[in-house]
Amino acid sequence: MSHRFFVEGDTLAPEQCRQIATVLRLAPGAVVTLVRDGLELDYRLDRVGRDEVSGTVVARRPAAGEPRVALTLALPLLRGDRCEEVIEAVTQLGVSRLAPYTSARSVVRTLSAEKRERWRRIAREAAETARRGRAPTIDEARDWSALLAALPGPLVVAWEEEHERALEATLEVLAERPAGSAAAAVAPRPLATLALVVGPEGGLGEDEVALARERGGLTVSLGRRVLRAETAAIAAVARVVAALDRG
Amino acid sequence: MSHRFFVEGDTLAPEQCRQIATVLRLAPGAVVTLVRDGLELDYRLDRVGRDEVSGTVVARRPAAGEPRVALTLALPLLRGDRCEEVIEAVTQLGVSRLAPYTSARSVVRTLSAEKRERWRRIAREAAETARRGRAPTIDEARDWSALLAALPGPLVVAWEEEHERALEATLEVLAERPAGSAAAAVAPRPLATLALVVGPEGGLGEDEVALARERGGLTVSLGRRVLRAETAAIAAVARVVAALDRG
Repeated sequence: MSHRFFVEGDTLAPEQCRQIATVLRLAPGAVVTLVRDGLELDYRLDRVGRDEVSGTVVARRPAAGEPRVALTLALPLLRGDRCEEVIEAVTQLGVSRLAPYTSARSVVRTLSAEKRERWRRIAREAAETARRGRAPTIDEARDWSALLAALPGPLVVAWEEEHERALEATLEVLAERPAGSAAAAVAPRPLATLALVVGPEGGLGEDEVALARERGGLTVSLGRRVLRAETAAIAAVARVVAALDRG
Repeated sequence: MSHRFFVEGDTLAPEQCRQIATVLRLAPGAVVTLVRDGLELDYRLDRVGRDEVSGTVVARRPAAGEPRVALTLALPLLRGDRCEEVIEAVTQLGVSRLAPYTSARSVVRTLSAEKRERWRRIAREAAETARRGRAPTIDEARDWSALLAALPGPLVVAWEEEHERALEATLEVLAERPAGSAAAAVAPRPLATLALVVGPEGGLGEDEVALARERGGLTVSLGRRVLRAETAAIAAVARVVAALDRG
């Protein structure tokens, strides 16, 4: 499999040029893959220098590794490195956007610019390793109310006090009830976007859940066992992508 | 919710007695929950001493947190603490048994008695936190051939070279084809046991997969993205338990 590089535009960044010239030692004529915005470009190297590599795009195709659904994960700020583990795993699994947030019971309440930049790097590297077509974007941290205003619909909130509505069944219902449609029965179609919220350690408060419901959010159960926030995030993303990416 | 203690038999261990007497400071008449073998026992304290606590079982019921399927996860030995993260997460998600193994491409090749004992403690604590009815058992490490001989059927192997057969579709097929049944069409019934193998870093070899297939194993795809072994294990367990534990 050819080497992959996430790029902006059609040009390689200086550190990518150095990697090609001095680490991988690729010669003119070799073909690498440039990846941008969900597209894969086969790029035949014409000139290879330490500081500049030029070449020609010889083929382009949609990246095969992108899920059909654009999934936004709203992730509570967690102590220590625990968000980083989650970001790496859910990027491999296919999230499109990460929306960090604080809630009433959050212990960690700020996301520094340095930490967010580190998260971006972790997400980009995980996306490259997973052979995805794009890296997820990472929002600034928001409080609960600003988070709800910023999320695309439909909105699903994993909540440990919800015991009736299961995740997969809810996704089926949402696929049969497109937003804005008044038709009683329309053919199910795959969801194009979805926002998924997992709660912080200590759980979401009743008033926070009430506000999410006012905004159209549906609470769902992830099962009868009590999950740590990290496990809940990884498990829920795995299940959503599997359910919406079939066929 | 009452305090929970995993026990063997109906008696509390010395450190559990000390916790009740000196940390929780519970008095006679208080009710705690003893958990053993998938059962929850409500236990009314009669006598509370630093070294011995006695009481009476006043109710017993199946533990609500156990999944229907007894799922065995075959987990490759991974470098550093990475197996521990997986054990914690998959215990919360509901595995019954962990079967560590080494394969041809494994870097780590032994599991010391101390490390296995630490894994057992991590699994027990994760099971208590998750409010499960039992902690998973942890086998000794085996090589690939011994692993296949020790796993209960049916056997599902997550393999990155499998591009046709998806995990959930395979579980549906297995539910319609009970082992030992010659009937052409029988009503689907939930699987009672399942063994799930995830591969090591570097993947399973062709000959290893061939041997698994000879033993009746079915290879499945977890999706079009390349997952690290830890992410694959957590995601696959989440999806299996969700698919087999519905309703």
